[in-house]
Amino acid sequence: MIIPSAFWLVPIASVVALSMAFYFFRTMMAADEGTPRMREIAGYVRSGAMSYLKQQYKVVTIVFVVLAILFAFMAYGLQWQNPWVPFAFITGGFFSGLAGFFGMKTATYASARTANAARKSLDGGLKIAFRSGAVMGLTVVGLGLLDIAIWFLILSNFYEGDRMALITITTTMLTFGMGASTQALFARVGGGIYTKAADVGADIVGKVEADIPEDDPRNPATIADNVGDNVGDVAGMGADLYESYCGSILSTAALGATAFAMSGDMQMKAVIAPMLIAAVGVFLSIFGIYLVRTKEGATMRDLLRSLAVGTNISAVLIAVATFAILYFLGIDNWLGLSFSVISGLAAGVIIGQATEYYTSHSYKPTQKISEAGLTGSATVIIKGIGTGMISTCIPVVTIGVAIMLSYLCANGFDMEMSAEALSHGLYGIGIAAVGMLSTLGITLATDAYGPIADNAGGNAEMSELGEEVRHRTDALDALGNTTAATGKGFAIGSAALTALALLASYIEEIKIAMERTGMTLTNLKGEVIAAADATIPDFMNYFQVNLMNPRVLVGAFIGAMAAFLFCGLTMEAVGRAAQKMVEEVRRQFREIKGILEGKATPDYGSCVAISTRAAQHEMIFPSLLAIAIPIIVGLVLGVAGVLGLLVGGLAGGFTLAVFMANAGGAWDNAKKMVEEGNFGGKGSFAHKATIVGDTVGDPFKDTSGPSLNILIKLMSMVSIVMAGLTVAFS
Amino acid sequence: MIIPSAFWLVPIASVVALSMAFYFFRTMMAADEGTPRMREIAGYVRSGAMSYLKQQYKVVTIVFVVLAILFAFMAYGLQWQNPWVPFAFITGGFFSGLAGFFGMKTATYASARTANAARKSLDGGLKIAFRSGAVMGLTVVGLGLLDIAIWFLILSNFYEGDRMALITITTTMLTFGMGASTQALFARVGGGIYTKAADVGADIVGKVEADIPEDDPRNPATIADNVGDNVGDVAGMGADLYESYCGSILSTAALGATAFAMSGDMQMKAVIAPMLIAAVGVFLSIFGIYLVRTKEGATMRDLLRSLAVGTNISAVLIAVATFAILYFLGIDNWLGLSFSVISGLAAGVIIGQATEYYTSHSYKPTQKISEAGLTGSATVIIKGIGTGMISTCIPVVTIGVAIMLSYLCANGFDMEMSAEALSHGLYGIGIAAVGMLSTLGITLATDAYGPIADNAGGNAEMSELGEEVRHRTDALDALGNTTAATGKGFAIGSAALTALALLASYIEEIKIAMERTGMTLTNLKGEVIAAADATIPDFMNYFQVNLMNPRVLVGAFIGAMAAFLFCGLTMEAVGRAAQKMVEEVRRQFREIKGILEGKATPDYGSCVAISTRAAQHEMIFPSLLAIAIPIIVGLVLGVAGVLGLLVGGLAGGFTLAVFMANAGGAWDNAKKMVEEGNFGGKGSFAHKATIVGDTVGDPFKDTSGPSLNILIKLMSMVSIVMAGLTVAFS
Repeated sequence: MIIPSAFWLVPIASVVALSMAFYFFRTMMAADEGTPRMREIAGYVRSGAMSYLKQQYKVVTIVFVVLAILFAFMAYGLQWQNPWVPFAFITGGFFSGLAGFFGMKTATYASARTANAARKSLDGGLKIAFRSGAVMGLTVVGLGLLDIAIWFLILSNFYEGDRMALITITTTMLTFGMGASTQALFARVGGGIYTKAADVGADIVGKVEADIPEDDPRNPATIADNVGDNVGDVAGMGADLYESYCGSILSTAALGATAFAMSGDMQMKAVIAPMLIAAVGVFLSIFGIYLVRTKEGATMRDLLRSLAVGTNISAVLIAVATFAILYFLGIDNWLGLSFSVISGLAAGVIIGQATEYYTSHSYKPTQKISEAGLTGSATVIIKGIGTGMISTCIPVVTIGVAIMLSYLCANGFDMEMSAEALSHGLYGIGIAAVGMLSTLGITLATDAYGPIADNAGGNAEMSELGEEVRHRTDALDALGNTTAATGKGFAIGSAALTALALLASYIEEIKIAMERTGMTLTNLKGEVIAAADATIPDFMNYFQVNLMNPRVLVGAFIGAMAAFLFCGLTMEAVGRAAQKMVEEVRRQFREIKGILEGKATPDYGSCVAISTRAAQHEMIFPSLLAIAIPIIVGLVLGVAGVLGLLVGGLAGGFTLAVFMANAGGAWDNAKKMVEEGNFGGKGSFAHKATIVGDTVGDPFKDTSGPSLNILIKLMSMVSIVMAGLTVAFS
Repeated sequence: MIIPSAFWLVPIASVVALSMAFYFFRTMMAADEGTPRMREIAGYVRSGAMSYLKQQYKVVTIVFVVLAILFAFMAYGLQWQNPWVPFAFITGGFFSGLAGFFGMKTATYASARTANAARKSLDGGLKIAFRSGAVMGLTVVGLGLLDIAIWFLILSNFYEGDRMALITITTTMLTFGMGASTQALFARVGGGIYTKAADVGADIVGKVEADIPEDDPRNPATIADNVGDNVGDVAGMGADLYESYCGSILSTAALGATAFAMSGDMQMKAVIAPMLIAAVGVFLSIFGIYLVRTKEGATMRDLLRSLAVGTNISAVLIAVATFAILYFLGIDNWLGLSFSVISGLAAGVIIGQATEYYTSHSYKPTQKISEAGLTGSATVIIKGIGTGMISTCIPVVTIGVAIMLSYLCANGFDMEMSAEALSHGLYGIGIAAVGMLSTLGITLATDAYGPIADNAGGNAEMSELGEEVRHRTDALDALGNTTAATGKGFAIGSAALTALALLASYIEEIKIAMERTGMTLTNLKGEVIAAADATIPDFMNYFQVNLMNPRVLVGAFIGAMAAFLFCGLTMEAVGRAAQKMVEEVRRQFREIKGILEGKATPDYGSCVAISTRAAQHEMIFPSLLAIAIPIIVGLVLGVAGVLGLLVGGLAGGFTLAVFMANAGGAWDNAKKMVEEGNFGGKGSFAHKATIVGDTVGDPFKDTSGPSLNILIKLMSMVSIVMAGLTVAFS
């Protein structure tokens, strides 16, 4: 197969991204790590995080080996799958894990260095923290594009000629998306349970009962809490966004292969278009990262502007660049597709702004939650849940509008919804998601730098560097929260659009599985045709994927329930682990005399062990459930049931995810608002009440909520990979 | 049109139910209301409740007048609707309101009488409370069947002959379902906000801050709290279940008219079958009510057995009776349809048992929430939310199995899903829902008697009747909670099945609207046919109601979001009102000297006024939103969007409703478990923590959760009534 020369931009972008990441890493490592005490603390956190990650990867490796053997059996034994599947699955998982690992390695080296730099100036701290975040951002996109480029080059040597070649290549590559999703889910769930068990436990006994500040070295759970920030917020986030990034590119490529199957060389162009947009996004991200410069003695306002300039200019440039990329690529309807990307980007910005509105204490909703602290923790919880639920409205409506617009722009506003209009429109939805994630290099940098600043604060507190340093790291953290809103908007929005694109890929994969086993189907006119020739309406009618089919309806019920069940299991896991942590911390305060007076050192290790054991133990069941549900539904309810499941899971899960993330964020900031001196300030009745809110919000926003985005896509990925099984049995 | 003589059973059952209700009411009124203090307290509560209800009906009347004028314009001005719609809509609302009104009237007269009877013996209290609950149960079913019978007789005089006559009659009657739903939503939301604002406010200041027991006369919010139990739990529940009962019968009748349209006199039989099952259910309910007998000096165990015997025997008998009814009616596949009813009843029992398992402190989940109280309110909340989310699994899977079984039993296990199999199967789903609600006369009696016992307890406390009387009323309340589980299972399960049946009615209504305006559609073979001749698959293909149509997907997103938004708005409303209540109670404690020493009387009236104003003010927006969303989606996204909306709302809303109801129930009982002396007992750290859980759970289980069941059905009803608008504009 002839690969167009433009494609080579993809591996080049990958190498550039990885080189820049390495360069930033070296620069960061060259900085001074500070006092011996700072190095010691950072060492504890680093070794705790690494030992956890090793444990985690052991468990995940077992799961991967089992699944890979299963896929190998399906591919070689039963011929239900294509022979590449087991390998693609493993590399996806491996690279996703690697992205998390590198991110965490960087973060644990960067925290003491950031704290040390913050001893001198605010902008010095920002520079180290942000560049370290950029290591993560660029590693994720670099590894992602590397994996995509390698597999595309390998597979294009094995499939030749006809229109099925690219369809087979792209759907095979989706399997590596399943590897990435599986890894990401384990990372998010395991890391999320780890970090929140430690955080909740530390807060309950430390802040509420013993009245000592956050990250105080007298708190036995404080090292576990700081380790948690790294394994949850950094490693988990890295694996998660690696999955989102690759998932959006791969599913769009697969949609392109189908939509343009009949259009000659247009098919190849449609397949590589999302990769090219992502590749150009890498260069624009690096450009944006360099725009984040700070002058000596910069104020908060300067820093904020500098960060905003970096991310916003990258986003605007990718919008402009998309027109050029698609024009020079010479794809049909390049103008319409470019507007699809614009509608995706606009949706991301709006969702980001809405998130900001509902979770920042500069606005009414969160202020009202703080105020509810005056009447106690119960009203704080009620208000927070109410706010979180209401906050689902704008993102859902925005995504709805973006779906319709990117669909219609891509098919020339064809409202008739012919088979062709449908597949072109779906490609438009996919490419909108790619646009949103194309500047991930920089948006992830602003996101990942938050936990680094947070950890730097922890290091400063434990090393007793004094109020001012802590103030600076807190300011850096707050800064990150503000600029990260847009990045979060893009991540949430693209997850929904990608999941939609995966629905279409599922249909394609079912057709391929039918083709492989020589099954035919009946089209709308009642003629028997080859599965590959079926249009989407033919397919939908043949499998009765309509909304009055009870299988579809039951599937939709189960999909919505799966999201709740998954959140419930992870919430319970955090609750259980946190209770153990509370008991252990109380035990230490009781039995080790002198801890609270600072005369005795607490046993940090036992708290780290509790979090590690809990995370390892508790992450397995929910994660396996996410893999099992689509398989069981496929066997019992067939294709119609699976599509119902995916739609129910997407609609219910997306809304639930937004609710949980925003409620958690709002509680966090409501507490911060009180701590800034409002409604009685630190130590007041309202403060205690808002701490309860923040504690409840921790697993909402850092365990259950973010895992849902992966769950939604993993269920689609599993369905796609297991299509052969579904076809054989139902 | 010739009405079969069997139909007359329906008005007879209605008259018998209403007569028995009147008889039980008279018996209750003949009992002694106790000491002057008891009468005085009861008088306060009664007048507070009545004055609230008057206010509420005023607001609702305005909404009804506006909507009725709109419908009249649509029917007479634009000919988009059938001329009966405005009248049917109004009677549905009127009867639903009446059911709530009678229930509340009875409850407010019964509470002091129950307390007085409980001064002598436990079984005396049970008798009065349960018979008063039965007044409500029988009034609801009696008024429901009356309205159905009258409208069926009227309309059958106006439509003659062809197969469209019964389809038109039954879909017209569904409009009165919309009236009932609208009234029910206002009653549940308004009543729910009222009662929980008072309850939460009273608990926060009374129990947590001032350390005085529940219902203590020193608490200024205590009268408002007791009024709230009546307007929320009694009047709200009455209107709600009236709507469920009529909705299930009417939607099944409509499905029967369509499914058997081509089967001659079978069509009429299919239409009256659900009415007959309901009518026989009335007699069995009365039989069951008489089985609930208590001997002098009965123990708790005796009473429990007696209540369980009454409800279970009624349920078993209706299962048996269904075979006889359908056999003698001579309907096709009577055996299969009877098994559909059995699968519905079995699902109701399983959901009830699962509810019991997750919310009773006899089982682990709730016990663990109590235990979490040892580590504070944050872990109580986390555990409760986790438990509630996990508890959605069994009900959803059970409903899924019931849907598949009742569908397959009704169409002779036709897996091919031809057009005929589909419509017969859907009729089976509807009739399963009717089976579940047919013994509502007694299940509602066991449900409604809970708030009556609760209020009797309040009266006993405020009249200072002593510990023993309060213990007895608490025992009665607890007893009610246990036996009410099955009733709740039936209510939840039937709501899901009815909502499914309404989806099919929506399709029918769209076809009628197209027919009215002379529009045609293209069937699967590509032929242009009359709308009335279109099968479900034709319809689905023509309107592209498949899961890859972006309009369907966007609709599903909005449906799931609507459920969250609605809950968020009602939660916030309770939070806001509760905060005002807390401030008012604190103000009284501060400003009126001597309240806490029992030397001064608090100003109960100002608390009643706060709840009333809040409920009136806050119920309007969420309720109107529920009406507006399906209309807007219909105009913007057309038929495909509306069906997506309804399915997304059903799957997301049902799961959310189960989550909220169970989390709330579990928190309530976790607190009770601590109060029984576990984990430190009353006044302990764990007690305070579980009170926070209970307080958060109050709006979960009594405001937002129960309103969702109505919301789901109301959105369908609105879509059905507005079908003409959707057809005209999209």
